[in-house]
Amino acid sequence: MSSCAFSACTFHKTLKSHESMCNKPSYLKKSFVPADVSRVKMTWRNSMTWQQTGSRLQCGALNGKNNLCFLKGNTFQLDDVIEAQQFDREILSAIFEVAHEMETIEKTSRGNQLLKGYLMATLFYEPSTRTRLSFESAMKRLGGEVLTTENAREFSSAAKGETLEDTIRTVEGYSDIIVMRHFESGAARRAAMTANIPVINAGDGPGEHPTQALLDVYTIEREIGKLDGIKVGLVGDLANGRTVRSLAYLLSKFNDVKIYFVSPEVVKMKDDIKEYLTSKGIKWEESVDLMEVASKCDVVYQTRIQKERFGERIDLYNEARGRYIVDRNVLSVMQKHAVVMHPLPRLDEITVEVDEDPRAAYFRQAKNGLYIRMALLKLLLVGW
Amino acid sequence: MSSCAFSACTFHKTLKSHESMCNKPSYLKKSFVPADVSRVKMTWRNSMTWQQTGSRLQCGALNGKNNLCFLKGNTFQLDDVIEAQQFDREILSAIFEVAHEMETIEKTSRGNQLLKGYLMATLFYEPSTRTRLSFESAMKRLGGEVLTTENAREFSSAAKGETLEDTIRTVEGYSDIIVMRHFESGAARRAAMTANIPVINAGDGPGEHPTQALLDVYTIEREIGKLDGIKVGLVGDLANGRTVRSLAYLLSKFNDVKIYFVSPEVVKMKDDIKEYLTSKGIKWEESVDLMEVASKCDVVYQTRIQKERFGERIDLYNEARGRYIVDRNVLSVMQKHAVVMHPLPRLDEITVEVDEDPRAAYFRQAKNGLYIRMALLKLLLVGW
Amino acid sequence: MSSCAFSACTFHKTLKSHESMCNKPSYLKKSFVPADVSRVKMTWRNSMTWQQTGSRLQCGALNGKNNLCFLKGNTFQLDDVIEAQQFDREILSAIFEVAHEMETIEKTSRGNQLLKGYLMATLFYEPSTRTRLSFESAMKRLGGEVLTTENAREFSSAAKGETLEDTIRTVEGYSDIIVMRHFESGAARRAAMTANIPVINAGDGPGEHPTQALLDVYTIEREIGKLDGIKVGLVGDLANGRTVRSLAYLLSKFNDVKIYFVSPEVVKMKDDIKEYLTSKGIKWEESVDLMEVASKCDVVYQTRIQKERFGERIDLYNEARGRYIVDRNVLSVMQKHAVVMHPLPRLDEITVEVDEDPRAAYFRQAKNGLYIRMALLKLLLVGW
Repeated sequence: MSSCAFSACTFHKTLKSHESMCNKPSYLKKSFVPADVSRVKMTWRNSMTWQQTGSRLQCGALNGKNNLCFLKGNTFQLDDVIEAQQFDREILSAIFEVAHEMETIEKTSRGNQLLKGYLMATLFYEPSTRTRLSFESAMKRLGGEVLTTENAREFSSAAKGETLEDTIRTVEGYSDIIVMRHFESGAARRAAMTANIPVINAGDGPGEHPTQALLDVYTIEREIGKLDGIKVGLVGDLANGRTVRSLAYLLSKFNDVKIYFVSPEVVKMKDDIKEYLTSKGIKWEESVDLMEVASKCDVVYQTRIQKERFGERIDLYNEARGRYIVDRNVLSVMQKHAVVMHPLPRLDEITVEVDEDPRAAYFRQAKNGLYIRMALLKLLLVGW
Repeated sequence: MSSCAFSACTFHKTLKSHESMCNKPSYLKKSFVPADVSRVKMTWRNSMTWQQTGSRLQCGALNGKNNLCFLKGNTFQLDDVIEAQQFDREILSAIFEVAHEMETIEKTSRGNQLLKGYLMATLFYEPSTRTRLSFESAMKRLGGEVLTTENAREFSSAAKGETLEDTIRTVEGYSDIIVMRHFESGAARRAAMTANIPVINAGDGPGEHPTQALLDVYTIEREIGKLDGIKVGLVGDLANGRTVRSLAYLLSKFNDVKIYFVSPEVVKMKDDIKEYLTSKGIKWEESVDLMEVASKCDVVYQTRIQKERFGERIDLYNEARGRYIVDRNVLSVMQKHAVVMHPLPRLDEITVEVDEDPRAAYFRQAKNGLYIRMALLKLLLVGW
Repeated sequence: MSSCAFSACTFHKTLKSHESMCNKPSYLKKSFVPADVSRVKMTWRNSMTWQQTGSRLQCGALNGKNNLCFLKGNTFQLDDVIEAQQFDREILSAIFEVAHEMETIEKTSRGNQLLKGYLMATLFYEPSTRTRLSFESAMKRLGGEVLTTENAREFSSAAKGETLEDTIRTVEGYSDIIVMRHFESGAARRAAMTANIPVINAGDGPGEHPTQALLDVYTIEREIGKLDGIKVGLVGDLANGRTVRSLAYLLSKFNDVKIYFVSPEVVKMKDDIKEYLTSKGIKWEESVDLMEVASKCDVVYQTRIQKERFGERIDLYNEARGRYIVDRNVLSVMQKHAVVMHPLPRLDEITVEVDEDPRAAYFRQAKNGLYIRMALLKLLLVGW
């Protein structure tokens, strides 16, 4: 068992004043800007320096009502949602607060009209019914409207050959926000750099799927009650799953976190993430003993072994697939407050007998995706 | 000509009090339950005895406002719509009354908001544009919203392999009611047993298509003015059409009905339905003379000979197809008050010259599908 | 360089009184008709003489409020939008006025409810995401609702074989207006003759795409400020593009217009349009010199060379494709007030460097499609 344990490094360094918040040249899409902050705004959208940036969050007041907040240095503006890395601890916390408000709205305020008159285009270059329905439900639960396409490839079919940028320029004329699923890594960023309306990345190929990462962290906070000091076991396909990679990344922003990697040899977590965690002072371990890990963790995060990654090596797939199953035995060693999570869809890596245990959090996790997406739509369209 | 004639048996035996109504252990999804009926509620959703039941209608008051009705013993609660057999004469009558109200709403009350804030998911595992549009129109005519998918198979694609149950648990988090079309018989029942929100079966393979059955019976009542004592000729493909089978089943619930079967030899009505009708005291006849039958009937219910059922025997198909055509000659012997019905789509089994005759009821019948679906959505979402 | 120059003929001959407006027997779908005009209404929908007509615009008052306008002879009623030829100068002008109002609504009146309670069915027999999203956005920007299908072919699949007419009779029961895209020329007209609700042709095969033609003319008026006396260069594939053919047709309705045709030899403008223009007294020229034409024109209307039209002759395609490119050089000779237009999608016939020039009007043109469609939906559903 290899091990790597440092004391947790600190976070929460930036964002003390709007000057430090705004060390990134940025472009405010929203029209109202208080005079006293206008000097910090520059265009990054066509800037070649943009790629090297960390956070792309905007500082700036959304409108007059929020001036006070802005002056206190704790109001942000979200322009686009492109990758998990754009969020730091403060912004995560702020988003989660809004997500929690959305939960209340969804449960008690049928026919809410917060986004009435707003139009979301779901521009899907490959089908992802689960993600699309989640976004569309989020929009409609807040009174917004939706334009749907699941065959956006038709825009740029071989014979026609339209660029993504041209498609975006057309679609932004028809809608107020674009939720895009694409098969190419980096497509969401290109779309965001083109569009004058907000863009949300709903997955771009092997690249990012930031709303999944957000809902995972939100679920941990809602289920466990905290993010500092938690122990998380990541189980299954850690090599190919962007979900677990993004989750590990986001967890590194919190204090005193411990991560356990439990995976078949062929799909182990890659070195880049391990090195990143180490550099951030996050303790991590690799283990082959799911039972032992399950007994220690607050969260057992199971993932599906993706058959499509194994090509013709069905033998390797079958070996990997049966290796770590979350079943009643695993439940029996887990702590009472701990939970089982899974990004879904599930095959048989969690047995159905687990479903009825209150610690089975995966369907609540899916539901949290709705609240996170409601929160993001609200924040991108009408602000904090 | 074979013949089977009994005097009609009686119906209308149950539903005299809520005790007799509720002989089925049941689970009320709706949250409010008056104290005095709480004792009759048990869970059937996970019960293995469920399959053998007849009616799955719920008794129970929907909310305080309906207490009075409930106490009078004539208020039901509808949880799911899974199969034609779940409806008895009383519930049919009650649904038809609501459908008639829906007709008034659709014609006079543009922008009705009865279902404002409710979200329907149309989860179609195979495309059925006609049925889907009808449901979506019904929802929107009442101010409700819709999440659409016609490629629900993508949820459970080969590589992913999600179960229907898991899909339902996810989708129920995004919506208030699920309208499902599936390619497997029994799928709707499995969905309903999983979901904590209402499920409507919009056709499950060779199984059931209950809203079609309801709209057929509703159309007969609207066109002829009664259901007791009517004569109905079922024409065409009686072996494969679930429509005519369900219709025969539902007609057996009424008094003094006479059914004529007119079909090519290869697609005759199967014995199970004939035996069922006989057991219920329903008079039926087989005939090869469409003209004679047409002259006697209140309803000539024509169906399409389904080419896809004949495989490579195109010869048999062509023979069957041309055998019984409803044309001007048939119209000429029909009574003045009688009507021609058809579930659509039509090929050439009704000639277009028939369309202009006021007795051609098939497009009105399609429109009635809208009213029936509006009624069911209303009943499942906000109650009677 | 061939040349054909007449003095412009006059237009504006009809529509001086409602009697001359209504020289076409017609059927008013709308229910209210002032007594004094009822005599001019006859049914054309089932009339075989209909095909030979020019204008299919209706005269008639929409409702009591508009009586005054009607009596002045300048109120029309629009029943269907089937082909560019149905519009004359007056009706174009009236539609453009409404489109301009729609622009104001879209920019300033979020959540407009002008079409609240109206339901549009987008019945697409072939996918055209761009056109569909534009119509659906138009409907939703005015508070209307949408039923979508992009696989309308499923209605009339091989096995089922339903006629377009039967499909229309079904869909009109579910909606208030039908926007149809079809693969067969003439399909929209057949649909309009069947339907008792308005039909908009969103493209029928090689036939018509009238809303594109309208948005093109509207864009010229908005960008140049006038339509009389303008010079327009049509560039690219003039043989296959229905866009440029319709545009040439509509421009012939204005005074003192001059049209330049600039195209590779293999895709030259066909004689029928040239003869038509000549017959209408419209001056036109063919030219091989894009630079010279660009320097003279108010509008350079570039089009895509459609690869799919060349079959296996890739050599011809490649030769045609590179022949006339709008780039910085072309821009440099264009007048300051002139604009570049393109129906989109664009390949490389306009270089991306042109995009940032204020004279690049093609994305504004796409946006104008939204305003034109909002205007048409408004006019067809609630009248002037």
